Amino acid sequence: MAVNTKIRENTLTIGKYLLDRLQACGVDHIFGIPGDYVLQFDKMIEDHSIKFINTTRENTAGFMADAYGRARGLGVACITYGVGINITNAVSQAYVESSPLVIISGAASTKEFLSSQRLHHLFNKSTKGAARDTTQLDIFKKITVAQAVLDNPATAVEEIEHVLGHCLCQKKPVYIELPRDQATALIPLQKKAQERNSHARSDPSALKEMVSEIEIIIKNCRRPVIWAGHELNRHGLSDGVLQFAEKYRIPIATTLLGKSTISENHPLFLGIYQGKLSRDEVRNYVESCDCIFVLGVILNDVDTGLFTVNLEQKQKIAATTELISINHHQYSGILFPDLIHSLAKLNLNVRFKDDYPALIDKNVPKFKAKKIKITSARLFECIQNHLSHHNIIVSDFGDSLFGGAELIVEQNSFFSNAYFATLGFGVPGAIGAQIACPDKRVICLVGDGAFQMTGMELTTALRYHADPIVILINNHGYATERPLLDGEFNNIWNWNYSMIPQVLRGGVGYLVKTEEEFEKALKNSISKRGEFCLIEVEIGKTDYSPALQRFCNLVNQMKK
Amino acid sequence: MAVNTKIRENTLTIGKYLLDRLQACGVDHIFGIPGDYVLQFDKMIEDHSIKFINTTRENTAGFMADAYGRARGLGVACITYGVGINITNAVSQAYVESSPLVIISGAASTKEFLSSQRLHHLFNKSTKGAARDTTQLDIFKKITVAQAVLDNPATAVEEIEHVLGHCLCQKKPVYIELPRDQATALIPLQKKAQERNSHARSDPSALKEMVSEIEIIIKNCRRPVIWAGHELNRHGLSDGVLQFAEKYRIPIATTLLGKSTISENHPLFLGIYQGKLSRDEVRNYVESCDCIFVLGVILNDVDTGLFTVNLEQKQKIAATTELISINHHQYSGILFPDLIHSLAKLNLNVRFKDDYPALIDKNVPKFKAKKIKITSARLFECIQNHLSHHNIIVSDFGDSLFGGAELIVEQNSFFSNAYFATLGFGVPGAIGAQIACPDKRVICLVGDGAFQMTGMELTTALRYHADPIVILINNHGYATERPLLDGEFNNIWNWNYSMIPQVLRGGVGYLVKTEEEFEKALKNSISKRGEFCLIEVEIGKTDYSPALQRFCNLVNQMKK
Repeated sequence: MAVNTKIRENTLTIGKYLLDRLQACGVDHIFGIPGDYVLQFDKMIEDHSIKFINTTRENTAGFMADAYGRARGLGVACITYGVGINITNAVSQAYVESSPLVIISGAASTKEFLSSQRLHHLFNKSTKGAARDTTQLDIFKKITVAQAVLDNPATAVEEIEHVLGHCLCQKKPVYIELPRDQATALIPLQKKAQERNSHARSDPSALKEMVSEIEIIIKNCRRPVIWAGHELNRHGLSDGVLQFAEKYRIPIATTLLGKSTISENHPLFLGIYQGKLSRDEVRNYVESCDCIFVLGVILNDVDTGLFTVNLEQKQKIAATTELISINHHQYSGILFPDLIHSLAKLNLNVRFKDDYPALIDKNVPKFKAKKIKITSARLFECIQNHLSHHNIIVSDFGDSLFGGAELIVEQNSFFSNAYFATLGFGVPGAIGAQIACPDKRVICLVGDGAFQMTGMELTTALRYHADPIVILINNHGYATERPLLDGEFNNIWNWNYSMIPQVLRGGVGYLVKTEEEFEKALKNSISKRGEFCLIEVEIGKTDYSPALQRFCNLVNQMKK
Repeated sequence: MAVNTKIRENTLTIGKYLLDRLQACGVDHIFGIPGDYVLQFDKMIEDHSIKFINTTRENTAGFMADAYGRARGLGVACITYGVGINITNAVSQAYVESSPLVIISGAASTKEFLSSQRLHHLFNKSTKGAARDTTQLDIFKKITVAQAVLDNPATAVEEIEHVLGHCLCQKKPVYIELPRDQATALIPLQKKAQERNSHARSDPSALKEMVSEIEIIIKNCRRPVIWAGHELNRHGLSDGVLQFAEKYRIPIATTLLGKSTISENHPLFLGIYQGKLSRDEVRNYVESCDCIFVLGVILNDVDTGLFTVNLEQKQKIAATTELISINHHQYSGILFPDLIHSLAKLNLNVRFKDDYPALIDKNVPKFKAKKIKITSARLFECIQNHLSHHNIIVSDFGDSLFGGAELIVEQNSFFSNAYFATLGFGVPGAIGAQIACPDKRVICLVGDGAFQMTGMELTTALRYHADPIVILINNHGYATERPLLDGEFNNIWNWNYSMIPQVLRGGVGYLVKTEEEFEKALKNSISKRGEFCLIEVEIGKTDYSPALQRFCNLVNQMKK
């Protein structure tokens, strides 16, 4: 990758270089918690045009930066040593779901390590001769794709470029450890930033062979379909796939995690394909095709509907960052992006029939609110009626995601944690997305269990004038677990959520129970910008969305 | 260690055996969050006489179990796979500060691992031939002292005994991974629980040699002192040290982390020795002694007052679980507990003069509340006046700890995280301690930064009728960081904390600003049992406790 920041003066510090490079990659905000090992660097952020966003704790900083990265292409969270390990859950999510996230951790200086065996925040005493406690580094090695310890100004530039390159290329988290004396250390003048060209290239003849094979398949199939996954979105390849699909009129289904890889208002969009968890019409269509392009799909249990997808189409072209294959043979030497670019450029005299049930998911009936208790199904119908292309939806795991999955949304405007499936991403993710995209309006879908984990992070929304609309679906417990095995442990102590704005000294709270009340609160929230709105929707304990109902049925079916 | 639970029937499952063994070690509560990989085991807890305590998230479950373990001798937290990594911060604290904590994590079954490459909550895809994703195990290996994956009923008993033995012997966290199909797997009948004798023994002649040397030192010194650290407390050796000290009238200072290792009302108690962070009279006394016993002290930067302790006494006997030495020579082959037991049994015809300033820290003036703004110093004076031997104090890090350190408390009734120094331990720790000791009344000292991290966990106090008194010292920011380097990042958005009971639907909230208001709220809280009380005390932004003031002075002094 090209280095945009030139080292012009001999006054450039490691901290400043790092911040300049991050900004050049589109980062205007860094999320985190201060701590003594990172205070010097925090101060440098304060003095930089990048803004430091104080969160209440490290894990929510990680979620915010993850969502920010999904929206902007790169997110950054900054922690202090040891106690900052509190961020590992968010980093793991970014690792599993491919989100470009840079973790910067302060640390004790090498001198401190060498002169004292035991320092606060450290995991292990230093051993003789070892320059530092590597415990944290060792842990992050498990959940990041590249790491650097910037303990040497002479190599710092190279190290920064190395990890940033991996983050941007792989769209996975990386870890940078910055000893506190090094933030302000000067980079030697002679150490010019090197042009790095970390892009590997595809083998042209392998690519040509594969494209030729695909051409023949396209010419000979009658009913192809594309199943698009989240990797397309993360790697900026959605438009390439769309170009390919539009040229030949190939309909596109997405995975759940890949939802909004293309605009769901696009006439070629079929719906979410998730095996037996799909809506019948989507499943029937996809499984009746004679050719499927599985692009950017990582086959996990959630996206495959507990491994019920049926990929027995006559022809199958599958491509991810990990593996590229046609039917039973694999290609090596081809990079995923290059393949997608080649598909986009294909020029065949073929057009498929529009025989797919267009607007499969788009039959949005006009919502007429009644004075009756609102159900989960009606809740999502109402939201759908008020969605605009200005909205980004951030969904936490649970019925908020099952239900939210059927909303029709624009391209790259639905962020969820459908694969790692941790709870608590919703609210901080919504704040991160709102800070990343101030011109959009973020709607957060979250259950009561997830809200109790991280919902008070709304304090950060107030402090930095981010104004997401949080729809809290209160079904009094861990609803997705009830159909699996129920017990007292699935219940949650009920809060008076709509009073939270009074605790936080800002924002607007609503408690709604009927369709009319919900629609009114939603309309008010949409029309009012400037501070967060929190709408608690009282839902029956076992009032599951249609999608969660399908999940329950499938689980029960599998038990038999 | 002896196994108390006999396997009598061929219906004993791994889950049941584990629960019975934990109960035999004094565990009546397990803290955690349910999740699909651990639901089977959660259900077994529900059916057991051990009570499951639902928390809002994993990290607070870890803190609760840590405090529970400090009070009871063993704490247990239960998580699900992958997302449960959210607990690592609490586990790291227990690891660094020596708290006996068992982490039980659900996991996918071996069959699931073998049959599917990608499962939700997992970090990495399974590789061919590998029975499971070891990422989580690898991470916990860094912050626990023993680990077991219970994927085989034939070895499960042995594995459980192995890790429990390490936990109880080392007083450090251990990790148990329980695949979801194994919780209910039957232990083979022939697999009798083995008597395990994991106790290593001291070399008798080494011990004898050391004790003889100590006898001579005692006979020849004029003014010995004991500096007692947290390891004494954790390993149940406080009484042994006290017996030794009482016999010869040797005064005892403690470390900060070791605070309450002995009752601070004991006439031999000197105060907290922390180098230049100590009160002058304590420091002068300790440093003027000609012989020091440094027992159970892990020399970290906090406990040594940023390495300003002066241990230049003529004779120095130092003993921890890691190292035993006299002056410049080390003894090997001696176990720390055996040494303390030997000291307790010493029988010499020596009595030292009571020339130490008795009641050094115990001059508690009667607090007379005035109608004036309360200061940090007066706040702690008032608390001191109302403390009784029924109280346990749980302090978070920050000025709550600096100020709280000077309270005079009973034995093992002050829990803090003075070494790992993470924020957020206070409130969940207080709840864990209150659940562990329902007959005591827990007082939590916490700052606003720490409270915003984990304070909403008070919901768990309500649900399980735990009634700690939470004193929230609101100084509007990270006060301990301001003297190091101040900036906008040290400020915290102010909440209306006293309204939290209205959100949580229980508990009592106070906002106090004057001495009179605080004393009234504290008296009311003490007299009212049954639900938590939250007293927000408005303190000036730079109104530091005397101890924090000493810290600031020391830091500034070091900068020069």
